Amino acid sequence: MGDSVSFIDAYRRIATEEAFAPPEMLRMYRELLASGRNDDPGFMSMWGFYSGSRSERATFIIERLQDLDAHRIADMDATGISMQVVSLTSPGVQVFDAETAKSLSVLANDQLADAVRRHPQRFVGLAACAPQDPAHAAQEIERCVRTLGFRGVIINSHTRHEYLNDAKFWEICEAAEALDVPIYLHPNTPSRGMIQPLLERGLDGAIYGFAVETGMHALSMITAGVFDRFPKLKLVLGHLGEALPFWLYRLDYMHQASIRANRYPFLKPLRQPVSAYLRENVYVTTSGMPWAPAIRFCQEVLGDTHVLYAMDYPYQYVAAEVAASDEVPMDAECRRRFFQTNAEALFGLEAH
Amino acid sequence: MGDSVSFIDAYRRIATEEAFAPPEMLRMYRELLASGRNDDPGFMSMWGFYSGSRSERATFIIERLQDLDAHRIADMDATGISMQVVSLTSPGVQVFDAETAKSLSVLANDQLADAVRRHPQRFVGLAACAPQDPAHAAQEIERCVRTLGFRGVIINSHTRHEYLNDAKFWEICEAAEALDVPIYLHPNTPSRGMIQPLLERGLDGAIYGFAVETGMHALSMITAGVFDRFPKLKLVLGHLGEALPFWLYRLDYMHQASIRANRYPFLKPLRQPVSAYLRENVYVTTSGMPWAPAIRFCQEVLGDTHVLYAMDYPYQYVAAEVAASDEVPMDAECRRRFFQTNAEALFGLEAH
Repeated sequence: MGDSVSFIDAYRRIATEEAFAPPEMLRMYRELLASGRNDDPGFMSMWGFYSGSRSERATFIIERLQDLDAHRIADMDATGISMQVVSLTSPGVQVFDAETAKSLSVLANDQLADAVRRHPQRFVGLAACAPQDPAHAAQEIERCVRTLGFRGVIINSHTRHEYLNDAKFWEICEAAEALDVPIYLHPNTPSRGMIQPLLERGLDGAIYGFAVETGMHALSMITAGVFDRFPKLKLVLGHLGEALPFWLYRLDYMHQASIRANRYPFLKPLRQPVSAYLRENVYVTTSGMPWAPAIRFCQEVLGDTHVLYAMDYPYQYVAAEVAASDEVPMDAECRRRFFQTNAEALFGLEAH
Repeated sequence: MGDSVSFIDAYRRIATEEAFAPPEMLRMYRELLASGRNDDPGFMSMWGFYSGSRSERATFIIERLQDLDAHRIADMDATGISMQVVSLTSPGVQVFDAETAKSLSVLANDQLADAVRRHPQRFVGLAACAPQDPAHAAQEIERCVRTLGFRGVIINSHTRHEYLNDAKFWEICEAAEALDVPIYLHPNTPSRGMIQPLLERGLDGAIYGFAVETGMHALSMITAGVFDRFPKLKLVLGHLGEALPFWLYRLDYMHQASIRANRYPFLKPLRQPVSAYLRENVYVTTSGMPWAPAIRFCQEVLGDTHVLYAMDYPYQYVAAEVAASDEVPMDAECRRRFFQTNAEALFGLEAH
């Protein structure tokens, strides 16, 4: 007991990529899959599985996604998680037509706000939005931050096969920057033009396709100049940055080589090397990567204020992984940053 | 001078991913691009650029690819490279119809063999082949190894949008294993079903698309059971393993989760965790990644006998990168493995 108390004194564990789903949204997913109107093969692969499988994995995840009370808090207590930064599970409302997506984003945010009100010491919310209507999305983000007390935005990668590099979505970036809250760019399955060979090999999901999709999305935001336009915008990537930290050197070299050779109209000179945006504007979380070598690598190349703990509940609810995260070699100050104070600073939790 | 001599005594630098192109092949690339018969948008992107651009980068690369004598050896001398492991540049013959590809692979191998005969202390060859006709490819690999003295096989990723996970190509794997030579799985632009969003953003090439394509290719070979079927087969990946080493933990977790949930018909149980094949059957080279944090990370997670030096000549001919590679922190024994003895062992160069 003495150990346990001093342990808790040393740092609180804030888990930063934790998912929920309103029952209404899961019903609408099932209806969309049954309707024949879905044009996203990745959505069919992911939610055809989760909503149709009788496997232990799918059953547990579907149950726990819908709980924002006793089961979730018991799971947090059982694994020593003080607080969850909760966000709408992928692909959220981004798979629907604009009108459906807008009303569903409001419903999801209101449900999450109610849960935060019931458990203010345990949950903090990220705002879902409908990028299908960027002006509505910006308004909804503002409502969530100013009125509901949410502390960031969740974007579940592509919105009907479009990406935030496209300037038509930049109202969303502008709103997040103005409100001083980060955008969490969470994976989705790869968009229509990129998924086929992955899907045929069973590699479209979390094993590989998520990283392909989300890494490209984040990189294309950088190369499109989003962070030159919105220099204070903060972007959060799960899975230790979707491997982009591994590529820092090569991204700089090849971006500069392409610019010098004037190879692509899309690639224009940036104010800084690509790696500078990854080090300054991007924060990475460990979601599903509780592995010392990769965590330490990211701390080394990004700086230890930019690497945060996440569990990826309920998709990867594994008590042994919390213990493994505790045991990653780092000094006490660094460990406190990793589990607690980086999240407090990034999501502005001190005032809450 | 004294420093220089003792330096050379300590290790020889063997560069393991170095490209050439027969003039005939470059002419046929231009003809294919002009013909309107090319169905590979990545080929159009890559070779439309290299064969059409007047940029300094493209001009230098086109010139140097075709030289296997004075210019190349002068460049090696200028940067302290003792030996190049030379292979047919991407996509090699793999973009052509089967008959064209077969005859061109023989021509390319004969040209490379002539160069190796002229400069036996400086070049060793990898065998090009035409996977479009797997039986011919296996025969050509055998001819190259037994008759021409080549020490491995180059596969420039997809062959007309197909991958080596497909059992129809396994004669190639069988031949390489039987001859005890590695397959170097080199990048190509992503295949048709995966390239579109990357291409639209200028990210289909070396900056990101190469890794997406080649990482998926290697991973799909593992998950398809290629290394259960051919347990002594060795696979070489450039660019420090196309980021697969970064994903070791997650690949194991998600592969096992998919298998338990029986999610995909393509994914079947393997004899070992995915990471075990990456550690045992796979070797990685630094080509274009002369960056200490990533090199040391790979040595840590794969073992330092599985990490080799490569320059990626002539695509990345940068003297300062050789110096940077020399300065990566490692002890003398490890450094000799990295630059020299790992390559000697993997490609069987001791007897040459």
